[in-house]
Formats: sequence, structure tokens, C-alpha cells
Amino acid sequence: MLKPLSVEVINFGDELLVGIRENTHLTYLGEQLAHHGVSITRSRVIMDDVDEIKRGFLQAWEHADLVITTGGLGPTADDLTRETIAEVLGVELVFDPEVEATIKDRFAVLNCEMGTHHLKQCYGFKGGEALHNERGTAPGLIYQRGEKFLIMLPGPRHELEPMFEKQVLPRLRLDGRIGEGDAYVQVRTCGLGESAVEQMMQPIIERHAALAVAYCVHYGMVDVRLACRDGSLQLAELKLIAQEARQIFRADFVCFGHCSLAHVVYHELRALDRTLAIAESCTGGSLADAFTDIPGASSVFAGGVVCYTDDVKVTLLGVPESLIKQHGAVSPECAVALASGASERLSANYGLSVTGFAGPDGGNEKNPVGTIHFGYHSPVGVWCKTVHYTGGRLDVKARAVQAALDWMRRKLRKYKLEEFLSAERGR
Amino acid sequence: MLKPLSVEVINFGDELLVGIRENTHLTYLGEQLAHHGVSITRSRVIMDDVDEIKRGFLQAWEHADLVITTGGLGPTADDLTRETIAEVLGVELVFDPEVEATIKDRFAVLNCEMGTHHLKQCYGFKGGEALHNERGTAPGLIYQRGEKFLIMLPGPRHELEPMFEKQVLPRLRLDGRIGEGDAYVQVRTCGLGESAVEQMMQPIIERHAALAVAYCVHYGMVDVRLACRDGSLQLAELKLIAQEARQIFRADFVCFGHCSLAHVVYHELRALDRTLAIAESCTGGSLADAFTDIPGASSVFAGGVVCYTDDVKVTLLGVPESLIKQHGAVSPECAVALASGASERLSANYGLSVTGFAGPDGGNEKNPVGTIHFGYHSPVGVWCKTVHYTGGRLDVKARAVQAALDWMRRKLRKYKLEEFLSAERGR
Repeated sequence: MLKPLSVEVINFGDELLVGIRENTHLTYLGEQLAHHGVSITRSRVIMDDVDEIKRGFLQAWEHADLVITTGGLGPTADDLTRETIAEVLGVELVFDPEVEATIKDRFAVLNCEMGTHHLKQCYGFKGGEALHNERGTAPGLIYQRGEKFLIMLPGPRHELEPMFEKQVLPRLRLDGRIGEGDAYVQVRTCGLGESAVEQMMQPIIERHAALAVAYCVHYGMVDVRLACRDGSLQLAELKLIAQEARQIFRADFVCFGHCSLAHVVYHELRALDRTLAIAESCTGGSLADAFTDIPGASSVFAGGVVCYTDDVKVTLLGVPESLIKQHGAVSPECAVALASGASERLSANYGLSVTGFAGPDGGNEKNPVGTIHFGYHSPVGVWCKTVHYTGGRLDVKARAVQAALDWMRRKLRKYKLEEFLSAERGR
Repeated sequence: MLKPLSVEVINFGDELLVGIRENTHLTYLGEQLAHHGVSITRSRVIMDDVDEIKRGFLQAWEHADLVITTGGLGPTADDLTRETIAEVLGVELVFDPEVEATIKDRFAVLNCEMGTHHLKQCYGFKGGEALHNERGTAPGLIYQRGEKFLIMLPGPRHELEPMFEKQVLPRLRLDGRIGEGDAYVQVRTCGLGESAVEQMMQPIIERHAALAVAYCVHYGMVDVRLACRDGSLQLAELKLIAQEARQIFRADFVCFGHCSLAHVVYHELRALDRTLAIAESCTGGSLADAFTDIPGASSVFAGGVVCYTDDVKVTLLGVPESLIKQHGAVSPECAVALASGASERLSANYGLSVTGFAGPDGGNEKNPVGTIHFGYHSPVGVWCKTVHYTGGRLDVKARAVQAALDWMRRKLRKYKLEEFLSAERGR
């Protein structure tokens, strides 16, 4: 078993401290390392200031086996990170002609001269190594002292990520610092609260002392990550435990891994070789958007109508004017008519609809702000469903999209056999 | 002038270190404080471990005037943050009967009993104060020693944010730690690269020695934040400088502040009292989504069609089949037909369309993956435009949405007079 690594991530960059940008690097590195069974022990963000860099880096280097930094490797005069860290380490910066050649080549391809300020980027730690940057000029740096590792990565995301995956991870694996492949199994649920999921996991946790369980909640979904505390459980055993969990969660089980609800619905539809159309008012295109994020979505997704006015509901989707007059555009009746209209007018086998008041204005006594009606038209039946949400407009939109997808997912799985037979008949 | 505060933010929570969640609290606090002229000096994320909390908190407390923590105030046994910090501070935890009464009231409203594990949350630092939590059980904590401040906030976002805005900011203002109101002015641009914006700002920067300028790039937009280094420039002067910048950026100037491109288009349309309809294929609903994120969008937005198949383009939007046969669905010709079709079929004054190949598959020799055609139908004319993007599917979608909105924004401003007159005629 590997000795657990103590890892500290340092992100350089003032923009992270003044609310301009979110620290996506930390999330990315955390997820990448978690897949290899390593947790980041701590992390800090340091502004571009020599004293701050000195103190922060020294504290990190003293307490961690592996320090990973991001940013601060640019060519401008105020990027002093490299120089300051060399000073703290007490190591010389040496010119690397290979790096210079690479940067020159890069500029030659772009048909321009390498500026002298880029010469700075050709310096690395004496005894260290440079990491090739396939997407930019700043090379990464690796420096090892005894058991300790320092890895410095460039700030832009599209430079950092391939460098980390293609060069850093293989290197850490080779040195035995991280394990091979996946170190955890994720079970995704939808429809249960976090504490309910925790309670349902209790009997499983009690049976497996070496099991480490982490929970993550996002928009109605609760993820359960199963890992091993001490290396005594193999991946195959974790997968068996995940199967136990799946049985316990029943219909609230979504998938193993990271599939979105739209992905799950997409896979079910592909298996049936059938298509879907959407009609949405208050979700305003975000339900269609969730589908079209999937590469190859066009194989199941015919399209959608964002029907923000009654007129569009009537003209494009064939909802009877009298129905809207009698029940209103925000009603279960209209939701059903929208779903059937979408299926029919866009020539798709299934229709899914959302109509409601996302707020902050709108709503009436019967349907206050936050009231959402869903409609579902399938070859085996037509359904509607109503929910009430609190929260701001964007929250309501996002939750309604998740709820629509989760509802369709359940219906598809529940009527799997009927759907399959109807699909057969439909050929 | 206020003495510049040294501020450290500590986020407690393992989920931030294993790639489960992004550190939105840091972004939020950074932005809030930046509005009051204060920058966060440094920040760290600490896992739920007594030794880690001790060392991390001590380092922060030694070097900062103001330490803000988030998370770790929950009722469960493994939330040891409060106890550990009290130990480092050498201060006693004392029971606060007022907090207990508030938590009990909260449970009474929900018709349930307060569990004994919540008693933990009734303890605060001796000599400190509790911050009322209007959205949850965990109160925040304030502790002052000499000139130093410690502020502990609960982890859930909807609890933290109102607490910070309604209680912490007024308190810091009262104590003279932060200034009143906005400390910077933001100029938003679109269509220029970061280095071009920097160059164009040079003459202005040279004229105003006390000006502090920060840049932020996101999806084709570059924001310029103008603040003052030393308190010698008032907000009114910053606003004048921002006006100078606006003149320099000409048509690439989007707005002062944080309006999205969709917002700017929305405001222009409201001013004209006219409506918009959208037809989109490869952006798959995200263009409509950008509009419907705006509260009150229904006053200008009629709706949209996500036309993922040729059939939908023909049936719902009236694109001639022969046109698609001759030029293909991904063509400038089809983009124009889609925009006009959207405007006509959804009874809107304007039509905006996007058709292209977002990838990873699709594309042909003439229109490789990343080719996007835009169409625009207005009361004063019809236009089309083509761009080529590199990058992944989601990137292409997001960039195409921004480009469509920026294009419409420019057109609306360019033909403002004509549009206004046509609007008058249209009445």
C-alpha cells in the first residue's frame, strides 16, 4: 500500500481573490487526484506579492510531500513567482536552451518573433525539469528534493489540464506516488435528501469497516463516493458495494459515475431508438440546452419550442385557445397539451413539457410564483405533475429542469417493457 | 483614508479539496469586499482535521487583521472547527441561551423538536457575539481582539450570503474597517483581446497615477475595473475616467457594471418596445436560455425554436425545403431564412438565428466543425454572418451564444435611429 501523500495546492493570482474568477483549478486537481486515491490536504490562494509568496510557499513546502502550484509563470515583469520560489528553495535558476528552442518554434509557426520578455520563461530550477506546454509558451516545472516534489503548472486552463494529465500524472504514477486508475466508485441518486441517503447507507457502512464514504449534494441529486480508507478493498469490491447501494436506493438510483440526468434519458431513448421533443416556457430553453450538451444528441433529440407567449403555444404547438382561456397557460391541462403538441408538431415519439412561474413576478392565487407543471407524452400514455419551488428565478429554472429530467427517467424505466414493445410495434 | 486591511479567508470543507464543489464562497466574498475597496490578501482551504485547523488558523490569525471563515459550524460531532479555534484563541466557549431560543423557535415553526446535537451550535466565544441566521440553524460568530476581527460564517450559500450582507458588512462599516458603497467602476467590453484593451487603456493610465486597473477575460468579453490606489480619487472621478474609456472603446464598449450581453439587448429592445424570437440549432436552447435568465424577459421575448432536425426547420419555421437541399441546413442562406421564419412564425419584430456544427461530429468540407452562421432579421434589414471556432462542443455553444448577442447589440446600436423610426411607423 502507498503511504498517504500530503498534498498542498497553491493557486497564484489576484483575480481569484477579488471575486473575478472561480478557482476551477482546485476543483480540477482535486477531482483528478481523487480518482487516484489521493486527497488534497490543504490549499491556499496567494496574491502576486513577493513577501506573500515567500511566506505562503515556505509554509506549504514545510508541511507537504507534494506541492502543486498554478499560475505565475507568465512572461511579464510582475510574474515573480519563479524567482521567489527559487530563493525560498535556495536553488539557482538556470537557462534551458531546449525550452528556448521550443518557444522559438512556437512563435515561428505563428509567423512572429519571440519577444525578449519570453526569455524569462526559459529558466528552470537547477536539477529540476521542464514540462512541455503543448498549448502555450510557459513550460511547467518539476523539482524534487529527497521525498518532496514541487510541480509548477501554468495558469490557463487549456494549458494546465493536458500538461497535468499527460505529463504529471504518469510521472507521479511512475514514482509510485499515486496508484493506477480509479480509486473510488460513485453512486448517483436523485429524489432523496442527503440525510436520507446517509441513513440508507448506514447498514452498508457498518458491514465494511474500511469503507470511506463522502456525499455531495447538487440540485436534487446526492452523490455517494465509495473509496477505501486503507487499501484493503480492491476496486472490484467497491463495485460490489456500489451494487448493494443501488439495490437500496431502488428507483432513486440514477447511475454509477457522473452521468447527468439528461444523459441517462438520452441513453434510455437510444436503447429504444426513439426521439424526443420539448416544449418549455419558464425553463426558457435550459431543458433543451441540457440535452444538446450531449455529443450526438441529434440522434434522439428532434428539437424544442420555447413558448414564452400564449400565441406561440397555440400557433406552433397546437394548444387550443379555449384550453388556455379556461385553465390558463400555467396549468396541468396546458402542460399535457404542450407535451402532446411538441411530440406531434416536431414528429417525435416523446414529448416533455414545462410551464410555470419562475418569478420574481407573475403567478396568481392558484399558481403562485414557483409553481411548475410538467407534461409527458409517451407512446404508452400521457401524464402531468405539479411541484412548488421556493428560491430565485435561476434556482427555480435549474430545479425545474432537473425535476423534468428525473421524472422522465423514472417513467422510462418504469414502463421499460411497454415502451420496448411499443417501439417494436412502431417499426 | 482607511488603513488597508489585511484579510484572510479560510474555507473549511473536505468537499472543496476532492473536486466535488467549487469554492464559490471565495469568489462571493472577494467580489463583495472589492465593492468596498478591500482585497482579500490570501485564502486557504482546510480539511476537517483538528491539527490542520489549528495550524492553518494560527497562521491566518497571526498575519491578518480580519479573518473570515466559512463552514464547519454544523451540529454534527465531526464539526470541530468551533472548539479548535477557541483553543487556538485561548478563549472559552460559553452557552448562549438567546441562540438556543432562536433555534428552538425555528424548529417549532417546522413543527419538530430541536435535537440535542444542536445544543453545540448554541456555544459562542466568551466576549464574542452571535450573528443571527435567518435561513438555517447555525449562527455566525464574531470575535474581536484588539484590532483583529474573526468572523465565522455558516457553509450553506443561502445562509452565508444574507448574513454577510445584512450583518457583517454593516458591522465592518460601522467599525470603519471598510468604506461606504462602491469602490470601483467596471467598464465591460466585447470584441477586443485582453492585450488590445490594455494597450488602449495606456494613455488613460498614464494620465492618472493613482488609478488601479484590473482586467478580467470571459468568453469574448474583457472587463476593466477602475479603482483607486490611495483614496485620492473619488467615485465621481472614477466614473469620469470610465467615460473616457468608453469613448476609446467605441462600439466595443458594452456597459458600465455587470450586465450580460443578453441584458444589453433586452434593454435596447425595451427602449424600442419591440419583441424578439430566436431560432437556434447548434446552440440548442442556450441562446433562448440567456434571455430567459432575465427577470421580466417576457416583455420582449416571444420565444424560440430549437430546430435540431431539418424537418423542424421546414415545418415550424417555414424554411423552404429546396433551400436546405441546395445550400444545406448549415449555411448563411439557411441562417437568414431561420431568422426571418422565427420573426414571422412567432410574431416578433426581430429574429435572431444560429446554425452550425458544434462538434465533435458533423461538419463537411465547406463547413468544418466549429463553423457557425448567424442570421438577423430586423425591421430595417436582414443580415448574416459566419464565424469559425476551435474548441470543444460546450465551448463552441457558449461562444456562439455570446457572438450572436454581441452582433445583435452592435446592430441595434448602429441602426438606433432607423429602428426607432421604424418602431414609430409600426405603431
